[in-house]
Amino acid sequence: MFVVPLIERKRDGAALTAEEWSALIAAYTDGRIPDYQVSALLMAVVFRGLERHELAALTDAMLASGERLSFDGWNTPRIDKHSTGGVGDKVSLVLAPLVAACGVAVPMMSGRGLGHTGGTLDKLEAIPGFRTGLSLSEAKAQVMKIGCALIGQTPEIAPADKRLYALRDVTATVEAIPLIAASIMSKKLAEGLSGLVLDVKHGSGAFLPPTEKGLELARTMIALGEDRGCPTVALLTAMDRPLGRACGNALETEEAILALRGEGPEDLMEVTYALGVEMLLQAKVETTAKKARKKLESVLGSGLAAEKFEQIIEAQGGNPKTLDDPSVLPQAGAVEVFMAPATGVVQRVDPRLIGRAVVQLGGGRTKVDDVVDPTVGFVITVKPGDKVLAGEPIASVFAKDPAGIQLGFDALTRAIVIGDKLREKPLPLISHRVTKAGVEVLGKAAS
Amino acid sequence: MFVVPLIERKRDGAALTAEEWSALIAAYTDGRIPDYQVSALLMAVVFRGLERHELAALTDAMLASGERLSFDGWNTPRIDKHSTGGVGDKVSLVLAPLVAACGVAVPMMSGRGLGHTGGTLDKLEAIPGFRTGLSLSEAKAQVMKIGCALIGQTPEIAPADKRLYALRDVTATVEAIPLIAASIMSKKLAEGLSGLVLDVKHGSGAFLPPTEKGLELARTMIALGEDRGCPTVALLTAMDRPLGRACGNALETEEAILALRGEGPEDLMEVTYALGVEMLLQAKVETTAKKARKKLESVLGSGLAAEKFEQIIEAQGGNPKTLDDPSVLPQAGAVEVFMAPATGVVQRVDPRLIGRAVVQLGGGRTKVDDVVDPTVGFVITVKPGDKVLAGEPIASVFAKDPAGIQLGFDALTRAIVIGDKLREKPLPLISHRVTKAGVEVLGKAAS
Repeated sequence: MFVVPLIERKRDGAALTAEEWSALIAAYTDGRIPDYQVSALLMAVVFRGLERHELAALTDAMLASGERLSFDGWNTPRIDKHSTGGVGDKVSLVLAPLVAACGVAVPMMSGRGLGHTGGTLDKLEAIPGFRTGLSLSEAKAQVMKIGCALIGQTPEIAPADKRLYALRDVTATVEAIPLIAASIMSKKLAEGLSGLVLDVKHGSGAFLPPTEKGLELARTMIALGEDRGCPTVALLTAMDRPLGRACGNALETEEAILALRGEGPEDLMEVTYALGVEMLLQAKVETTAKKARKKLESVLGSGLAAEKFEQIIEAQGGNPKTLDDPSVLPQAGAVEVFMAPATGVVQRVDPRLIGRAVVQLGGGRTKVDDVVDPTVGFVITVKPGDKVLAGEPIASVFAKDPAGIQLGFDALTRAIVIGDKLREKPLPLISHRVTKAGVEVLGKAAS
Repeated sequence: MFVVPLIERKRDGAALTAEEWSALIAAYTDGRIPDYQVSALLMAVVFRGLERHELAALTDAMLASGERLSFDGWNTPRIDKHSTGGVGDKVSLVLAPLVAACGVAVPMMSGRGLGHTGGTLDKLEAIPGFRTGLSLSEAKAQVMKIGCALIGQTPEIAPADKRLYALRDVTATVEAIPLIAASIMSKKLAEGLSGLVLDVKHGSGAFLPPTEKGLELARTMIALGEDRGCPTVALLTAMDRPLGRACGNALETEEAILALRGEGPEDLMEVTYALGVEMLLQAKVETTAKKARKKLESVLGSGLAAEKFEQIIEAQGGNPKTLDDPSVLPQAGAVEVFMAPATGVVQRVDPRLIGRAVVQLGGGRTKVDDVVDPTVGFVITVKPGDKVLAGEPIASVFAKDPAGIQLGFDALTRAIVIGDKLREKPLPLISHRVTKAGVEVLGKAAS
């Protein structure tokens, strides 16, 4: 008799009180409310949205369901970056050690691959021995010692979010901006941060493709962060094509290592630097974007960022030789080069088709308990707008066996569209900067 | 992986195919789809509705989940009446024997009290010994023998509806016209009818108070019935005040018996006759409304209808003396007369407040397994528009004990509003007649 009137009110467009949201989340986490009532309520939220005070209460309740990292009395600024998810997005693996090497603590909690997108945890676990399942106290000690820990959502953090997320995933209630925002922010706010930078993807490969949806999500998360004393800023970045060249776990880890050595593809570096600049500004270790960018470039150029990644790998049980010799990463059973099927201009590299193909090759999950094959994936060396000649190598497929190669070729044939000229302008790589003050259109030219 | 894309499509406003609805309902009935996915889908249906072909497929799937009565080769026309539920609505107890006494078979499947409304089964079970839980074959044999059986939804009929209804009840997904229509019609179409008459309530005490909603529900059910070879017609009747005088199970049964003896209140008789006329016309035992009305009045006046009820009671194990001596019905522990608190005109008799008070007195259920006290309730002798003098008796409360009397008095004080004049015109008792051809406005004056 307690839940039905609340579902009714949300269904009919009214708001629940903060106390009602708290009680709901607490009761659901304790197993006192069945899944079927919560899924009906979530679907009503998909249609009706949440008012600002409801969203705040929901986020606080999820946050309160678990523990939080506390760095009280430690003066080092702590900044995390969160991406809303994309294809080829290995930014975290480059950015976290880079920013940590600049003297900023980075307590980074990441996720696994979801749908067509890859996950930082799966990429890190491609490194032999790397352990992402640190406890909260292990993570804290490591952050205080070497400035960075790269971990998964521990069972102590926001268990209500974990339970709600699993339910949303099987009830078609994932795509609701307030629910996405509450889920992300309830975890980030548990990290004891002094600032947060969001990488909000838009374009066909993003979970919310329209730019306005990306902006709305950014504004929603920023309001949640700022209201809770965590300065938050967001960049909107392009996900109408994969980021960088590699798509697939070990392949992306290898590309991240190349990037830390100064050999990263341009688009990956631009996004990494842009996010890094925001992190250094938030941490107040630099006062202008120009100086911050210079600092990042010099720390990367000097090898300090690569060294920091080596320390992190060693601290988390991974093979530290990986950095000097990426061939210790697991290798695919079969590799084949894919040639351009025609002469012309690359019109599209469809990120969803590529991401789904990685999953089909075994590089992602279709069920929660699937084991991921880290070796499979693609390296795609062309971008929309590039001119290609028929027969020119434009990609490689990494698979378990010849059947996988065929699957990969089929996917590339559909995903890479070649025509006489570029018909649709790619999204600017970094198009908007969103802060509590408003939206700044950057509109940098596409890389 | 099978259900989520279906929920997504309905959420996004698209239609599912007939095959998809069939597969969904079959899988849910078999326990192969969890409640939490179905409740999310139902909430999406609340917002998006169902297209005509979806509603047909859902209804057919629920119908196909169980057995159907078959009267193949039996020439007697079979007509049922269904009410969408109200307060003081004891029409079925008068109408079923009356129409059966006119030579029409009435295989009537009714429900229990729901929310603030009463249920025919609970009223019948006030009769000592009366058994509503007949099997389908017992019901069929009784209909063929004496022309009528008054039963509950047997486990054989539309089990999918039973399961869905229970889920809707606890997930705030009851109030959706296509779901209401599918639920009602999947049961009615299993009765092997040659015609169906619907009593659709509107006004504050109805489940769907607005007149337009009532009309939409009527049209939806008529389309479902007609498309499946069951001629269906609906009357919209007033539920902005209780029907008749008695509200409460045994009290309503007693009022029905009085009505069968020719002593029923005017509004109850008008609604009963109007529905009966439609049933006789559908059965083709009379050719005009005028003749049908005359037939009904004469069969009631001759005592044949009362005699038919006696036969039904006896056939279903009840005490047949009830008809001659309603004092064999269970009697309340405490009875008190309620006086008009002021002189003036009755502005309102609020049916929801009265219905809820009956439940609170123990005459309805707040949990599925509550035992109903048949003795409690109200007899209210005034209607909106009546002039009353302060201190004049206008109602009686029937309760278990003095605390119940107090509760009843409080409810009457709030429900019966007396003022200087009638501020809002009561709804016409029978306002619309809806057939497959369209809506006819009757707008009879309020009784």
